[in-house]
Amino acid sequence: MAGNSFGKKFIISTFGESHGKGIGVVIDGCPAGLEITEEEIQIELDRRRPGQSNIVTQRKEKDHAEIQSGVFEGKTTGTPISIYIKNGDQRSRDYDHIKDKYRPSHADYVYDKKYGFRDYRGGGRSSARETAARVAAGALAKKILEREGVSIHAYVSQVGTLKLEKPYQELDFNQIEQNIVRTADLEMAEKMTNYIKEVRKNGDTVGGMVSCVIQNCPVGLGEPVFDKLHADLGKAMLSINAVKGFEYGSGFDGIQMNGSAHNDLFEIKEGKISTESNYSGGIQGGISNGMDIYFNVGFKAVATIMRDQKTVDNAGLETQITGKGRHDPCVVPRAVPIVEAMAALVLTDHLLRSKTDKM
Amino acid sequence: MAGNSFGKKFIISTFGESHGKGIGVVIDGCPAGLEITEEEIQIELDRRRPGQSNIVTQRKEKDHAEIQSGVFEGKTTGTPISIYIKNGDQRSRDYDHIKDKYRPSHADYVYDKKYGFRDYRGGGRSSARETAARVAAGALAKKILEREGVSIHAYVSQVGTLKLEKPYQELDFNQIEQNIVRTADLEMAEKMTNYIKEVRKNGDTVGGMVSCVIQNCPVGLGEPVFDKLHADLGKAMLSINAVKGFEYGSGFDGIQMNGSAHNDLFEIKEGKISTESNYSGGIQGGISNGMDIYFNVGFKAVATIMRDQKTVDNAGLETQITGKGRHDPCVVPRAVPIVEAMAALVLTDHLLRSKTDKM
Amino acid sequence: MAGNSFGKKFIISTFGESHGKGIGVVIDGCPAGLEITEEEIQIELDRRRPGQSNIVTQRKEKDHAEIQSGVFEGKTTGTPISIYIKNGDQRSRDYDHIKDKYRPSHADYVYDKKYGFRDYRGGGRSSARETAARVAAGALAKKILEREGVSIHAYVSQVGTLKLEKPYQELDFNQIEQNIVRTADLEMAEKMTNYIKEVRKNGDTVGGMVSCVIQNCPVGLGEPVFDKLHADLGKAMLSINAVKGFEYGSGFDGIQMNGSAHNDLFEIKEGKISTESNYSGGIQGGISNGMDIYFNVGFKAVATIMRDQKTVDNAGLETQITGKGRHDPCVVPRAVPIVEAMAALVLTDHLLRSKTDKM
Amino acid sequence: MAGNSFGKKFIISTFGESHGKGIGVVIDGCPAGLEITEEEIQIELDRRRPGQSNIVTQRKEKDHAEIQSGVFEGKTTGTPISIYIKNGDQRSRDYDHIKDKYRPSHADYVYDKKYGFRDYRGGGRSSARETAARVAAGALAKKILEREGVSIHAYVSQVGTLKLEKPYQELDFNQIEQNIVRTADLEMAEKMTNYIKEVRKNGDTVGGMVSCVIQNCPVGLGEPVFDKLHADLGKAMLSINAVKGFEYGSGFDGIQMNGSAHNDLFEIKEGKISTESNYSGGIQGGISNGMDIYFNVGFKAVATIMRDQKTVDNAGLETQITGKGRHDPCVVPRAVPIVEAMAALVLTDHLLRSKTDKM
Repeated sequence: MAGNSFGKKFIISTFGESHGKGIGVVIDGCPAGLEITEEEIQIELDRRRPGQSNIVTQRKEKDHAEIQSGVFEGKTTGTPISIYIKNGDQRSRDYDHIKDKYRPSHADYVYDKKYGFRDYRGGGRSSARETAARVAAGALAKKILEREGVSIHAYVSQVGTLKLEKPYQELDFNQIEQNIVRTADLEMAEKMTNYIKEVRKNGDTVGGMVSCVIQNCPVGLGEPVFDKLHADLGKAMLSINAVKGFEYGSGFDGIQMNGSAHNDLFEIKEGKISTESNYSGGIQGGISNGMDIYFNVGFKAVATIMRDQKTVDNAGLETQITGKGRHDPCVVPRAVPIVEAMAALVLTDHLLRSKTDKM
Repeated sequence: MAGNSFGKKFIISTFGESHGKGIGVVIDGCPAGLEITEEEIQIELDRRRPGQSNIVTQRKEKDHAEIQSGVFEGKTTGTPISIYIKNGDQRSRDYDHIKDKYRPSHADYVYDKKYGFRDYRGGGRSSARETAARVAAGALAKKILEREGVSIHAYVSQVGTLKLEKPYQELDFNQIEQNIVRTADLEMAEKMTNYIKEVRKNGDTVGGMVSCVIQNCPVGLGEPVFDKLHADLGKAMLSINAVKGFEYGSGFDGIQMNGSAHNDLFEIKEGKISTESNYSGGIQGGISNGMDIYFNVGFKAVATIMRDQKTVDNAGLETQITGKGRHDPCVVPRAVPIVEAMAALVLTDHLLRSKTDKM
Repeated sequence: MAGNSFGKKFIISTFGESHGKGIGVVIDGCPAGLEITEEEIQIELDRRRPGQSNIVTQRKEKDHAEIQSGVFEGKTTGTPISIYIKNGDQRSRDYDHIKDKYRPSHADYVYDKKYGFRDYRGGGRSSARETAARVAAGALAKKILEREGVSIHAYVSQVGTLKLEKPYQELDFNQIEQNIVRTADLEMAEKMTNYIKEVRKNGDTVGGMVSCVIQNCPVGLGEPVFDKLHADLGKAMLSINAVKGFEYGSGFDGIQMNGSAHNDLFEIKEGKISTESNYSGGIQGGISNGMDIYFNVGFKAVATIMRDQKTVDNAGLETQITGKGRHDPCVVPRAVPIVEAMAALVLTDHLLRSKTDKM
Repeated sequence: MAGNSFGKKFIISTFGESHGKGIGVVIDGCPAGLEITEEEIQIELDRRRPGQSNIVTQRKEKDHAEIQSGVFEGKTTGTPISIYIKNGDQRSRDYDHIKDKYRPSHADYVYDKKYGFRDYRGGGRSSARETAARVAAGALAKKILEREGVSIHAYVSQVGTLKLEKPYQELDFNQIEQNIVRTADLEMAEKMTNYIKEVRKNGDTVGGMVSCVIQNCPVGLGEPVFDKLHADLGKAMLSINAVKGFEYGSGFDGIQMNGSAHNDLFEIKEGKISTESNYSGGIQGGISNGMDIYFNVGFKAVATIMRDQKTVDNAGLETQITGKGRHDPCVVPRAVPIVEAMAALVLTDHLLRSKTDKM
């Protein structure tokens, strides 16, 4: 009800604040018998970790995942899996400059109005640090999907005005983890890296886009009306900090197409039902049809910039706020594992839900 | 769990098939004491009704809303409100041409795979007819929001390649119901009307965009993590048939902006906290900040076209399917009240949820 | 949230008032491919129907179940199943005697306080008429369980001071539908019938007990912590009008037993794991163990009596209320199919939920 | 879905196993601004703690509650509150005697069948240790209720054959915490203490009853149909380990009463609406009416006894199991705070839910 849980059958509930004791996630509904280790979770967390390259925030956060329950002798037991990530020393920082002032395009003001006060340390619950808990849970979802042969690849497809125009079919997903931007084209990677460095030099930030491709998804995932597969994917992506838009398949470009061009004609290919084109993005009527699922997620620029900005304080007076601290100049390189995690959580939830579709 | 319900505190559950006995909605969680009449519901339904103009489907559906429960002496009682819309004579049509064949870019194939068989009459549950039930429920949500002073205006902002480029602030929302396309500019209305007629003449269909503006929303609606206000709006919109994308505030265009330009600086205006710009789209950290909420919803072209198309049948053989029946050449004029209804349902749900934010 | 839905995977939502247009239920989550007819639902409804014998209320209610959606060509389609039961002529009765007065031990007073006003016609939503919708839904649940070989038998085990002391193993369940009290012993049936007639002659009412036995339940239904199988059965039973208590297995009598006597020792019987005794009532740690599940449900006397009673009105003045109308002198004969329906709904929900227990 | 969460608006999710790293609870939906300290939670935990007297288990568990999130500067922030209770050294014990054998009337067998294997250390998730997490969450619920003036008192009313026959009105609740049995009569306390000691001396265990009285509950809590207040209380109590029955108000004894005697006549008392008797137990039609709510909870004898018992092992062979370890001879003294916690959680959930009953 308070919006800290996600999923209906494979349910994750996250908790914790940016600079409190720690953050964590409880996974309820994971089938018993799944092999999982802390190391496997750690691999995903490390992809989201601050300080991993010179174009992301240089904060030092170790983000060590500890499984507190629900796993015994290396396997899930069917009971809730709690994963905890202790925060580093949370008392060391100084928040006097934001305690009473509302940072522009942050959640400070609305939290104060909604709850009467707020944990002002590093954004508290509104910090993107919360997404580490999602990535940890996503590691389990990914393992379940792997057993079904499903693969998920996200990559950076735009940074500011630099857009990777190639369709995903022409990309080599193996390149994604070979460059610090996490795009799927090494030439573009270099341009994007320089673009981000330039932005940071100016004390500024910039937006970007993450594209995601899901391959080998079984036919039949997604529910027909409100919980359409793309509706749940959309909600999942829009719930990630800084996301401003979601489109799948032909997306907003599809608006201009006529039906005769947009329709994906069915054919028999290698003995199975397939479609000639895939403007549907692998989902028809809200349900996966076995073709590739692909979608785009648009991120705005990070709100914390290294410049002075006009604002108001909680006494209702106009004032100025000073940029401080270490922040990402562009969020998308670290958003790639988050997008993958949320996609995996949605698919796993629908995979489990689909087990009772038929008698 | 099977995805036929929406909302957590103001919950709607829809049922019914396109050519079954009827369709309906049960609303659970509506506070007692709201004055509502069948006529008020009917007004909204009539905006969604087929046959209302010469650019929408000419099917004859009366869509009469009947309140079956939950209202006594003109007021809601706090118990479930069931609204039923009887279908017209459901036996009159011939479905032999689609019974065994999969219409391209429809849900026929995935339903067969998911459920083992399907109600093939007019698309059954996958038909956009289901959205009439949402519009009926939305009428109640709108009445609740009116009492809070909230207004919701949706309008058509694109048809195929024709795009209304003016920002919403320059539009006159009174014009929306004065033209059959439901755009907010009479000159553009004429162009769009002609565009749609041309498309129909070719037996084809085309996509479009609906934009929506919510004004005077109280500060504090939306939950911080997964149930961010825009995430729930996004899911609501993406759950509407034919929707391919959702963006709010600066949307996908925001990607190219630097943080220093994108940030909405706080100021005191007319004695209250406000922001100079509104790229945030009235939502920060997932919570409404009192500024206008605005978003775009992209619709693909209707899949049913009046042309022959290649496809396969349920025996796995390639075949042809013939376009038949009366369908919308462009879905957006009738989608306007659906977008408004879903927006109203999301806001009302979050309004009620917010009543326990503070002690 | 407003408590009109039950179940987490096989979800029923009921609506409707005693003397409104009708009552109904929407079932969401029923697997596709289940064969069901209106006649099968009607059989269960007829067991609950008023006027079926001379010891129950003589009201004339036809209670005809109409399937409005979710069934096609005799089988469930996987989409919501709406079942509607139209009320008879709802305008014929006179409610002036209860409109402003609070009937003792009814819900009139609390509804007025909770909702600000109430539908006073025949108790509105608080009427036990709502349970007809549950029985209709239960008919589907029973069919699902039948396929698994599960059987459910409820019977009257007490009326006032008359208690059927025989353990269920000594009873012949075939006798239940052979007597109008629905007890499982024909001798006791006659005594109970006379007891109820005597009570009615005095314008009074009396309580009773319904016992229920579930046989051949698969091992593993029920969730370990809050949704223990007996906790969900208990809630289901306590949600039936007039129920005051629930006990399963050894029940309240088990309090006096020592652990050495109460423990059910495991043994191998006919090649499978079994327990020598069954004080656990077929459920251990909240999960079915394959032994018979049995429980008791205690009902208080019906509150509507044919006598004058002291009360207060909605102006806060003391007054008198007169007994009127046709009501059950004892609720348990008609409660038997309701108990069975609720038991079937709980088991089916847990059966479907258990499909993802293991990888 | 997997049954580890409870509540719809004030939602608790527990996790952790008896002998894993620790147990915990996440509370979602607690309003912001509630003052709470770890000390206040500890007080309740200490009432449930093993080793607190010589008639309960002598295991040494410190059960220290640590708030990990959701509280800032002594007040709840509106975000999830995670409370963690680290287990003591979990490696020190030897489980060889139960690893492959099914303890009679424990959950060992059903866990193995449901999940394919089990965490056999001390019962894992099926251990009553899980209830410590509930008690911790209940401490917050109690604080919310206190602000409304609601009081909750549970006490032991039966141990084996010894029953406290006095109605609650004649008891002094101050005595409850003055005796180690937690009954409300010092004379009976002595008898019960001796009874329990005798049972333990024989290596045996015995059942008991906890009664609970809720005073000054506001009118209007509880939802009319499935989520009746007593149905939710019943489920809450039945979800506690070892509970076999629940009754409220007149309970099972009410069966024998006629309606004319059982009806609670309304009257005006001290200027407000009240009832002369209170067989309804403060709840009518599932909704609180302002009178005292009272109910009984029946517990069976603890299954772990200090004797050899016949059983089977996971290879399906008959064998013997030896009683070992330190266990409660009678569970009810330590169950008192658990019953109170669950009652507080139900009431708080319904209190928050009721905030949107009316416009």
